[in-house]
Amino acid sequence: APMHRMSGFAGAAWRWLLSLAAAARDRVVGFARTVWKIGADDPRKVAHGFKMALALTLCSVFYYVQPLYVFTGHNAMWAVLTVVVVFEYTVGGCLYKGLNRAMATVTGGALALGVQWIASKSGKEFEPFILSGSLFVFASAATYSRFIPTMKARFDYGVTIFILTYTLVAVGGYRVNEVAFMAQHRLTTIAIGALICFAVCALIFPVWAGQQLHDQVARNMDKLAAAVESCVEDLFSEAAGVDASTGERPAKRALSEKSQGYRAVLNAKASEDSLANLARWEPAHGKFGFRHPYPLYQKIGAAMRCCAYCVDALAASVGSAAQTPAHVKKHLAGACAALSRHCATVLREASGSVATMTRSGRLALVVGDMNAAAQELRHELRCLAALLEEDDSSDTEHNQDTAAPESAPPLIEVLPLFSAASLLLEICTRAEGVVSV
Amino acid sequence: APMHRMSGFAGAAWRWLLSLAAAARDRVVGFARTVWKIGADDPRKVAHGFKMALALTLCSVFYYVQPLYVFTGHNAMWAVLTVVVVFEYTVGGCLYKGLNRAMATVTGGALALGVQWIASKSGKEFEPFILSGSLFVFASAATYSRFIPTMKARFDYGVTIFILTYTLVAVGGYRVNEVAFMAQHRLTTIAIGALICFAVCALIFPVWAGQQLHDQVARNMDKLAAAVESCVEDLFSEAAGVDASTGERPAKRALSEKSQGYRAVLNAKASEDSLANLARWEPAHGKFGFRHPYPLYQKIGAAMRCCAYCVDALAASVGSAAQTPAHVKKHLAGACAALSRHCATVLREASGSVATMTRSGRLALVVGDMNAAAQELRHELRCLAALLEEDDSSDTEHNQDTAAPESAPPLIEVLPLFSAASLLLEICTRAEGVVSV
Repeated sequence: APMHRMSGFAGAAWRWLLSLAAAARDRVVGFARTVWKIGADDPRKVAHGFKMALALTLCSVFYYVQPLYVFTGHNAMWAVLTVVVVFEYTVGGCLYKGLNRAMATVTGGALALGVQWIASKSGKEFEPFILSGSLFVFASAATYSRFIPTMKARFDYGVTIFILTYTLVAVGGYRVNEVAFMAQHRLTTIAIGALICFAVCALIFPVWAGQQLHDQVARNMDKLAAAVESCVEDLFSEAAGVDASTGERPAKRALSEKSQGYRAVLNAKASEDSLANLARWEPAHGKFGFRHPYPLYQKIGAAMRCCAYCVDALAASVGSAAQTPAHVKKHLAGACAALSRHCATVLREASGSVATMTRSGRLALVVGDMNAAAQELRHELRCLAALLEEDDSSDTEHNQDTAAPESAPPLIEVLPLFSAASLLLEICTRAEGVVSV
Repeated sequence: APMHRMSGFAGAAWRWLLSLAAAARDRVVGFARTVWKIGADDPRKVAHGFKMALALTLCSVFYYVQPLYVFTGHNAMWAVLTVVVVFEYTVGGCLYKGLNRAMATVTGGALALGVQWIASKSGKEFEPFILSGSLFVFASAATYSRFIPTMKARFDYGVTIFILTYTLVAVGGYRVNEVAFMAQHRLTTIAIGALICFAVCALIFPVWAGQQLHDQVARNMDKLAAAVESCVEDLFSEAAGVDASTGERPAKRALSEKSQGYRAVLNAKASEDSLANLARWEPAHGKFGFRHPYPLYQKIGAAMRCCAYCVDALAASVGSAAQTPAHVKKHLAGACAALSRHCATVLREASGSVATMTRSGRLALVVGDMNAAAQELRHELRCLAALLEEDDSSDTEHNQDTAAPESAPPLIEVLPLFSAASLLLEICTRAEGVVSV
């Protein structure tokens, strides 16, 4: 019996191990799938990995090849260090860091050499105090300056490097006799590293921050257009659904996937801001000129978010408007659908105009159409309101010649529909705001 | 005459120079005021500058004091480097970078030493190729891994350091005879630098990311409560204003400053996410236990943003509801104001509950009150709708005994008010969503 129990225990342990292994395998497979998907969605990310490896391997040549090593010596380390920290996904990011690093190294180094010259004139015993004192002042001022928004956006990395260089030269130089010689040597290797970075980043499958920003804004605008359109579709299709099955399905149906596209717009602020900051550093490339108006994209993005807030409110009202009787909805369905189509057309026209970087001649036209459709919806609303009032006030006389065979619904049931319609009107106003940026 | 013209020219130049100097002075004064304001608003930022300077000065002692320099030698540079890149504003940031750096240095260094041992066994002529090949593989894999969201959030900095260490040890070690000795020495100085960082960051006026996140979420919730309240106030106060001066002021009046508070909520996502990521690394401190549920704050933040979208739509409707006749508004003013007050109470109660980290017993009570007030508003809406319908249908008979002395307004004028009210109801639903997170 103990033997039998033993084998039962062993079997249980074995099954437990098997299930553990299966769980681990599932996790690994899931992770591998995520990793694969990231690369399959955007092969440039895979290319980025290889580019980084290539840049580092180029740096390592300075160690392996004797004549090059004689030139750089142990300072080749600084080229490696530069590549590791400067190499970025976008060309703008690479240039931002590289130029910041260059400027900060030169400024910090020059300042440190100056202070050290002064310190060396004042005698050996005061030297450490002068050096440490100046370090304290400059480091605290530079660190504090990172809280200033403009500095943060443009020179955040530079400030770090400034502090680093100042400390290494001013303090580290205390123990080295030929500081200027050391500084010059380091600068050369840093420059070599930065050049390797720029060359690999900008020449092999470059990813431009400006282009990324441009594509993202245009794509988000299309998503917003699709969301406006399909939200209104949901609003009316749902009515039909509920009407047919007489309330069988839940009142709050999940929105169709297209209607959710506006969420991408809501969360795009951080990435738009950082891309716009990096794009500033990029040279002219492709269709993007030297002074391409990148801050404009941020403004368009803000206007789109403003529009998306209202789309969110409209999406929420889809559920509550489901109770409205279908024959009342019919009155507005046409005008609402037309307006949402026009609004989407305006946004798509604007997105096309952004994408091709041309001032679209049709834009004013479609905006006019949209405003006409909005006017039409306002008119329909007024008519429906009047009809509802009239229906109530003259139930007996007019019932035979009005088109509505059902009795007029109480006003309260129609209200969610009115709210949705007025939200749609507000969305159109804001869409015009997007266009007029 | 030429002399005269000369002096006129000189005068003009002088005036031009003066105006230029004045403009420059204005810019400098404006900049100085900005800088001063940042420090005055949050003195911890000034303290951060001094803390950074202190940490660096402590490192510089390793250069000045002979016995210490004998111990660290030229490697003291690595302590400085560590302090400059690891020192951060929040303790969480400092620990995140410090621990990432430590882990990555050890992993990268050990891996590199292992690969180097293998390479050294395979003969001098193959060594560079094995080393470069392994560098290429590891660097590209590590760089690609930064695109995986979980890696990005937790180990982004560590990956950079891993690549750096691997390259410096594997490739740099090619030229150094005692690699292990060098690696160990560097590790010691890096550890010294990291310890100085942690000590200065966590012991002198520490800024905890968890605390920051906590305060920010509670503060934003209060702002949202104030915005809901004062938006509704604006909605009705404006009516009175327009009514008194009979349309004299512009229809779209600027919202009061309090009503704009919700904008802080809309843009808080990026800072909430980064603070929550950093707070993870912090040890237990104050009221924050070891496994404090920081991701919960992100959920609350998302729910608040969801609520803020609707507040934005409501704020937009303040302008269009201004045309509604005052005597109609009177019907809803009470119920709307009461509901907004209750909604604000719920949010304030929740914010208090977040701030004190206690489960408020009153919360269920005030949510119940809010729902009762919402029910009341729905009832009022129904009454008003019925009244409007009745008013129309029975202009002649009932006019003497109904309370309204003015003729009933057309339905279309009342609609914006109805929309605003239903937005308010949606806001309350979403506020409940915030509470129930």
